[in-house]
Amino acid sequence: MANPSLLILAGDGIGPEVMAEVKKIIGWMGAKRGVTFDVTEDLVGGCAYDKHGVPLHDDTMAKAQEVDAVLLGAVGGPQYDTLDFSVKPERGLLRLRKEMDLFSNLRPAQCFDALADFSSLKKDVVAGLDIVIVRELTSGVYFGEPRGIFVEGNERVGINTQRYTESEIARVARSAFELARKRANKVCSMEKANVMESGILWRDVVQEIHDKEYPDVQLSHMYADNGAMQLVRWPKQFDVIVTDNLFGDVLSDCAAMLTGSLGMLPSASLGAPMANGRPKALYEPVHGSAPDIAGTGKANPIACILSFAMALRYSFDMGEDATRIEKAVEQVLADGLRTADLMGPQDGTPISTTQMGDAIVAAL
Amino acid sequence: MANPSLLILAGDGIGPEVMAEVKKIIGWMGAKRGVTFDVTEDLVGGCAYDKHGVPLHDDTMAKAQEVDAVLLGAVGGPQYDTLDFSVKPERGLLRLRKEMDLFSNLRPAQCFDALADFSSLKKDVVAGLDIVIVRELTSGVYFGEPRGIFVEGNERVGINTQRYTESEIARVARSAFELARKRANKVCSMEKANVMESGILWRDVVQEIHDKEYPDVQLSHMYADNGAMQLVRWPKQFDVIVTDNLFGDVLSDCAAMLTGSLGMLPSASLGAPMANGRPKALYEPVHGSAPDIAGTGKANPIACILSFAMALRYSFDMGEDATRIEKAVEQVLADGLRTADLMGPQDGTPISTTQMGDAIVAAL
Ligand SMILES: CC(C)[C@H](C(=O)O)[C@@H](O)C(=O)O
Ligand SMILES: CC(C)[C@H](C(=O)O)[C@@H](O)C(=O)O
Repeated sequence: MANPSLLILAGDGIGPEVMAEVKKIIGWMGAKRGVTFDVTEDLVGGCAYDKHGVPLHDDTMAKAQEVDAVLLGAVGGPQYDTLDFSVKPERGLLRLRKEMDLFSNLRPAQCFDALADFSSLKKDVVAGLDIVIVRELTSGVYFGEPRGIFVEGNERVGINTQRYTESEIARVARSAFELARKRANKVCSMEKANVMESGILWRDVVQEIHDKEYPDVQLSHMYADNGAMQLVRWPKQFDVIVTDNLFGDVLSDCAAMLTGSLGMLPSASLGAPMANGRPKALYEPVHGSAPDIAGTGKANPIACILSFAMALRYSFDMGEDATRIEKAVEQVLADGLRTADLMGPQDGTPISTTQMGDAIVAAL
Repeated sequence: MANPSLLILAGDGIGPEVMAEVKKIIGWMGAKRGVTFDVTEDLVGGCAYDKHGVPLHDDTMAKAQEVDAVLLGAVGGPQYDTLDFSVKPERGLLRLRKEMDLFSNLRPAQCFDALADFSSLKKDVVAGLDIVIVRELTSGVYFGEPRGIFVEGNERVGINTQRYTESEIARVARSAFELARKRANKVCSMEKANVMESGILWRDVVQEIHDKEYPDVQLSHMYADNGAMQLVRWPKQFDVIVTDNLFGDVLSDCAAMLTGSLGMLPSASLGAPMANGRPKALYEPVHGSAPDIAGTGKANPIACILSFAMALRYSFDMGEDATRIEKAVEQVLADGLRTADLMGPQDGTPISTTQMGDAIVAAL
């Protein structure tokens, strides 16, 4: 059987630095677990623009469609802020999501015991927190037409379109219900059905799919503004949250920050099964390219390493190895090892990106 | 000179209960401060639907256009959840906002010293917090056309339109800059210019108005997802935040919850100046109709009372009286008086809505 294949798109800013540590884990998988990955590397984001004039080359897009899984670091940086909208680094990432049709974005917000003190929230509010936001990733206002800046009369008008079809809602709802069944069996769906018709359709379809196919899962609905409040007030009331692309963007970042572990949070973006049965998939840390600390050795590689662990679990059915990596991460944290983002100004000297990667490999 | 006029729309749920306490303050203004308000009362939301079959009668709308200020309690309740979208309680409130053209919604998120312990955030993160979110309130995806649920092929499609004109952005930006000048002189504007063209226009126009008319104010821009994160991480970095209708809805609720004082937070929705120089204005608490506690005497009237204080300040140039009321609220809190929402389960016996109102009048 062919080796499992990976496309690594390290991207901009701290992307390449954190990805270098993932490669150590990939090396460990080969040496100690007998699993060799066929790894290809390529460019996405600002670095792709620098070389090709576009944030994602067609060849890279084609490769992404062929491999078993894509690992992405991060895109963006201040030097690209003035680029035209159509070639901004983000467009590369959005093109991958759209053309691979990665409709289900899983964003766990998990509070690591060793870090509960590091959250801006009180310890009892976040200790042991373990929720997943399932964000719709290929539709909504991110992709709806018409869109653009137009001139009407003597002024400019900015337009975007929120647009959801029934089947787009149904498939992401199913993926949330499936996930909930493997967890605490609870889904909360968030929209603004009190204000937006697209929210009404969202609520109706989620309810229908529930009633017909997942009546065993506990389902509730919440307005997204209240959702933001409840995440801050008592996040442990949730298990799985399912929401649209834009609310998912804001609410998952809010949830991520609750944990105090932003540099620790992975994500998986999944599409339909390919011919080999594996889902189309892209894995990336929730944090961004952090241009301010790029090149300083301060970046925390854990989110990217845990994204690789998610790849093992969701793409390669290697849940045991995924758990092993997660346990190794927990252990180095319990041992007190901290990168700069996990320390206060008075907490002593942090370890570097490479030291953290090495420590995790050692713990494995 | 004619007495200043008020239209009171107490609405649904706890609305009438908290508004009853505001009337005591209005009474105190007459008795002790020699300011008599001409008060009219009417219906909005579910109670208006029950009587008229619409959540806001045309006569009520006409009255709202004539008075100096509208005071609103809250709208909505589970018995109205199955109503058609067009007559839901919320449509009454949205009609008021739209037809009065109340484009600038000021939502202070302030942490009261006596309540800093009550937040889910650590005390040092929120103690002394005092920020204002200026939310655009009459445009964006709340009102953009086309909108609705359509059938395409053999499935339903939900559509809403995010739409902002240059002048809509400019006027709310001005109101944020004006406010900042009276405060710490800092504005942070939030959008998703990396994904939405309407966000690009938003950012450009805010920057232009700044450069031309308010170069003395410190302006920054932030993506709304990062905004949600930064609100949770370290909210004191902000002074005034300006954002669109939908982001403002979610981010202001997030900010409100940070303070631990949701039952305490007022809001002002302001439009253009009327013939008498006063702005069109509607004042309402940030909390909702809380149907679960309606009629139990548990509601906290402070948000509604502070909304009236905002009316004194912004509509009637009675800043001194506004401050007096705010100080009276601070004092009853410092004295340890608490409604149920401000207590943990072990904190003893809360006082009732009317007791809180009476205590504030006594402190005045
Ligand atoms: C980089 C940006 C386009 C992206 C988004 O808005 O989806 C990011 O914020 C995310 O959440 O993955
Ligand atoms: C009641 C509802 C229509 C309203 C909104 O979405 O604007 C509320 O959430 C608010 O923030 O005032």
